[in-house]
Amino acid sequence: MKTLTDYLWFETAERQEFVRITDEVASIVQRSRVQEGMALVSAMHITAAVYVNDWEDGLIHDFQVWLEKLAPSGQPYRHHQTGEDNADAHLKRTLMGHQVIVPVTAGKLDLGPWEQIFYAEFDGQRRKRVVVKVMGL
Amino acid sequence: MKTLTDYLWFETAERQEFVRITDEVASIVQRSRVQEGMALVSAMHITAAVYVNDWEDGLIHDFQVWLEKLAPSGQPYRHHQTGEDNADAHLKRTLMGHQVIVPVTAGKLDLGPWEQIFYAEFDGQRRKRVVVKVMGL
Amino acid sequence: MKTLTDYLWFETAERQEFVRITDEVASIVQRSRVQEGMALVSAMHITAAVYVNDWEDGLIHDFQVWLEKLAPSGQPYRHHQTGEDNADAHLKRTLMGHQVIVPVTAGKLDLGPWEQIFYAEFDGQRRKRVVVKVMGL
Repeated sequence: MKTLTDYLWFETAERQEFVRITDEVASIVQRSRVQEGMALVSAMHITAAVYVNDWEDGLIHDFQVWLEKLAPSGQPYRHHQTGEDNADAHLKRTLMGHQVIVPVTAGKLDLGPWEQIFYAEFDGQRRKRVVVKVMGL
Repeated sequence: MKTLTDYLWFETAERQEFVRITDEVASIVQRSRVQEGMALVSAMHITAAVYVNDWEDGLIHDFQVWLEKLAPSGQPYRHHQTGEDNADAHLKRTLMGHQVIVPVTAGKLDLGPWEQIFYAEFDGQRRKRVVVKVMGL
Repeated sequence: MKTLTDYLWFETAERQEFVRITDEVASIVQRSRVQEGMALVSAMHITAAVYVNDWEDGLIHDFQVWLEKLAPSGQPYRHHQTGEDNADAHLKRTLMGHQVIVPVTAGKLDLGPWEQIFYAEFDGQRRKRVVVKVMGL
């Protein structure tokens, strides 16, 4: 069995930003030489998400509008009594999910035709990390 | 270490349909001969979900009503400018989650008494796939 | 390759209660002697969640208020025709997610600075279980 662990770093220009990371994950999987296994891709900060969906700007816009509706910013969240102002970012990341497992088959990410891996930042403009751990034969 | 990868195919009669797949997953796990490990069950299309919850028709109805309320169809989603009409399906699948990992213990799915694995289709009536990857000793 | 499986039991005093379980999971990982791998932490009951987020009481309160808004109790859910009264608990656990995979690196949980693992009970006051399965080298 082989494992490889690596980290992707992000410091987004905008507070909220969605970044496609499929190629970065694929490159780590290739480096691991794992032929059959799984790759965990997981946000290490609790106001960011990792999800799989479409690489289409209109849909990304729809996601952002929808998340703002279901988990609005600017509300009197109790978390803000600590001095933070990002409670909505914690909620938004929960809706999107903070990690995915991608199967690795024949040495490659075993993704469907439209599946793309995204990092979704909800409280950016500072350095944050995603862990990628590959495990298999 | 052993791995086995297989795919489940779906072509639902209805656009939205929830299908129990616990037995299909259990059968793949048995075929893998893995005694201790994990089985990843993951939708390969981005308008479908895989989730674990109750096998009770009333609750499935409640899920569907609730998803329509939180992620309604028929809205002027920007994604629809591409010619698609299924943005709500992308949102609904995000709420339900697109994958689960089932632990395998003593050669069997290690599920609680009421846990059942479901495939949730939100844009069906065409052929779509779920990947099942089993990994372990 | 090594695996270790253990179970955490809960019987919460309140019907809804959030319990930090990072230390319990870390202890099982240590006992497994896995140095590089993954730990699955998964609720075995379908009205409970396992999630990763902040250990801050204000935010936990915000989560609970928010979940009640998105998945209210006391509605005429069809599931209740079976005699149950907990359909909202099934929906709430779906929003929070029922499992996480924690990477294990150099023998320890590879968590970001603020990541904590929580068990979220939405229909408690009875004995319920979480499975923890560690797998790796």
